[in-house]
Amino acid sequence: MRGGANSLTVRNYNQSLVLEMIRQGYESRTEIAESTGLSAQTISNIVHRLSDLGLVAEAGRRPPENGGKPRIKLSVIPDAGYALGVQIDRDETSLALVDLTGRVVARVRRQTPKERGPEGTIRQVVHAVERLAGEARLPPEKLLGLGVACPGPLDRRTGVVYEPPGLPGWHEVPLRDRLEKESGYPVIVDNDATAAAVGEKWAGGAQGVRNFAFVYMGVGLGAGLFLQDRLYRGATGNAGEFGHATLDLNGPECFCGNRGCVEVLCAPRAVIAAVERRLGGGEPSLMREGYRSGPEGLDFADVRQAALMGDDLALSELDRSASVLGTALVNLVNTLDVELITLGGEAFRGVGHIYRRKIVEVLDDRILARTRRKVRVELSEAGEDAGAVGAASMVLHSAYAPRMTRLKAV
Amino acid sequence: MRGGANSLTVRNYNQSLVLEMIRQGYESRTEIAESTGLSAQTISNIVHRLSDLGLVAEAGRRPPENGGKPRIKLSVIPDAGYALGVQIDRDETSLALVDLTGRVVARVRRQTPKERGPEGTIRQVVHAVERLAGEARLPPEKLLGLGVACPGPLDRRTGVVYEPPGLPGWHEVPLRDRLEKESGYPVIVDNDATAAAVGEKWAGGAQGVRNFAFVYMGVGLGAGLFLQDRLYRGATGNAGEFGHATLDLNGPECFCGNRGCVEVLCAPRAVIAAVERRLGGGEPSLMREGYRSGPEGLDFADVRQAALMGDDLALSELDRSASVLGTALVNLVNTLDVELITLGGEAFRGVGHIYRRKIVEVLDDRILARTRRKVRVELSEAGEDAGAVGAASMVLHSAYAPRMTRLKAV
Repeated sequence: MRGGANSLTVRNYNQSLVLEMIRQGYESRTEIAESTGLSAQTISNIVHRLSDLGLVAEAGRRPPENGGKPRIKLSVIPDAGYALGVQIDRDETSLALVDLTGRVVARVRRQTPKERGPEGTIRQVVHAVERLAGEARLPPEKLLGLGVACPGPLDRRTGVVYEPPGLPGWHEVPLRDRLEKESGYPVIVDNDATAAAVGEKWAGGAQGVRNFAFVYMGVGLGAGLFLQDRLYRGATGNAGEFGHATLDLNGPECFCGNRGCVEVLCAPRAVIAAVERRLGGGEPSLMREGYRSGPEGLDFADVRQAALMGDDLALSELDRSASVLGTALVNLVNTLDVELITLGGEAFRGVGHIYRRKIVEVLDDRILARTRRKVRVELSEAGEDAGAVGAASMVLHSAYAPRMTRLKAV
Repeated sequence: MRGGANSLTVRNYNQSLVLEMIRQGYESRTEIAESTGLSAQTISNIVHRLSDLGLVAEAGRRPPENGGKPRIKLSVIPDAGYALGVQIDRDETSLALVDLTGRVVARVRRQTPKERGPEGTIRQVVHAVERLAGEARLPPEKLLGLGVACPGPLDRRTGVVYEPPGLPGWHEVPLRDRLEKESGYPVIVDNDATAAAVGEKWAGGAQGVRNFAFVYMGVGLGAGLFLQDRLYRGATGNAGEFGHATLDLNGPECFCGNRGCVEVLCAPRAVIAAVERRLGGGEPSLMREGYRSGPEGLDFADVRQAALMGDDLALSELDRSASVLGTALVNLVNTLDVELITLGGEAFRGVGHIYRRKIVEVLDDRILARTRRKVRVELSEAGEDAGAVGAASMVLHSAYAPRMTRLKAV
């Protein structure tokens, strides 16, 4: 690892806490002292140290409220540190460079080189990292590390990825170790839905929300869960796989061994298959032109494009998919009683509003206690890059957030 | 309220913590001091106070381990305080008197007087409380309060029960206030599955388990959840209603507005309906004798009894019900990754082993990551009284556990 990579890591708990509060918008030393219970002198000392580290600066003065001294506004220096998020999915690998405040400053997408297996992807990621860092003119010590979001199953503690469906040739790949060796940066590997949830909670629309689910749909479907204000991973780190909940006892078989799983019924592959069946049956559609039968026929981008051009067949199948997902989310809400559902991931690109509208309708219509509560459904601001942005924010969160003393998986 | 009812309540945090540790089996002052970080002197003072309150006693000496002084064993005095748990379900109301250690010292069951609505039940409960307390020769000040477990929906903060399915005439019943007024004791009202989960965690088989689900089946089906070692109620107190998760998109309608809910497919009413259909079709069965068509025909006790006598029809329908419940629990485990599932409630009485065996089989066969984890499935020791025992332990927990400073809903 490059020596400088950890030099910005904040090791002291109070120091991390104060930094996180400034990032969250607490503006003055006085406010922070009041809220933490730490003395004004302690806060001043910490702010002094954070300022020496180049993480925090004074950003003007605010007029006093009760005739006292003007308060000095503090803010995090956005370019004090960066993290690079990488999201690997079946079709595309996307990268996002994120600054210390959680803002995306550069992004890039590449077709996942499927035929070259994990080695091809590793080489592609390393190359893209170097290029992005070069273009941003980042001194290496300012890049705190790489966060990699990947479909499961995987073991975040060892950074080993097992056999993610849709990534042929991937079999117990020691992704973290390989990427650390090839790139020279510290690496965190985590589930894509979990990463997206962390990003949404840290710097997105779920800030301040105690119970929420990030519904991540790429090739597969899963959820990242924050329950009682804490990331919920479950007893063995396998929580959130509601895409493999049976929704139709008599439905088609899923690779997971269940029948009628949500994912099998509504993820992009299911939509494509249904569209192809209907095209095969002779229904009119804008997609007819691009239609060739067989496995190399349509892809989800064709369906998306047709839907956006008002194609009835495409719209009806997206609506059906959204309706199935909505029912799965009724189940999730009845079980977990979250107050917010955020939608993100490649599958929602361009068509997130179609899904959102339908899901809102289904939830309003069918959750228990629907007259006494309302669940918000939002599209992630990070959109189809939610996994990449989330993975990057995991790195920043590990480096800076209270309770994290070194760069490690959260 | 009777004046003495709260006199045993432990108001001091450290004092509650020490009491709870002794209850959990920490035996000596030294062990408690080591584990809490409190000084030996502080522990001694607290133990002295708990002893003065009549809650804790010395229970012999243990030989020293390293040649030091013998350690004096401490234990909670079981009869220092009691709570009475009441579980109201469609068919039966059961009561359990529980001592300070969580042990059931007396129990009683009554047919729920359906035709007399909530008033009939309130009168019945008050009468049963007086009788149980009388028979146990309990001085009123030793009975800390009543815990009432009830099917939802309800509001535990106000103690108002809305329209629980299966309890005709119940409509926004201020159950807590009514029972407090009629009985003179403080009352907690909570969801039956939640109460059962608290009981299991406090004094049952889930002690020390961080992530578990108590699957409660009476007339309805729901779960009480402990996640990351904390009771999980969700954003609006409605978590755990996995009985109203759709398991069959094309299944029969449920009163909740969904289709093919787990509860509609596997709860006792579904079993009875299926048995009646097959009897109507002429299948041989021990249940034929008791069989009269119409709504006043079989009840679940008939099916249970026939199954225990080896009746094929009864066994096959219970097996089908267990298989459906097993699938619902695959969904729950894939979503929540709990390490333990505990089964309890009236519907499992006598047939819990049939359900347990089938559920274990389904989980072993179908959960994700099944080669890398195993979920335990256990029958609650409290069995069909799990709700009553749990409700009683909620009262004790509120009175004694750390962070609870007065008798209130947890």
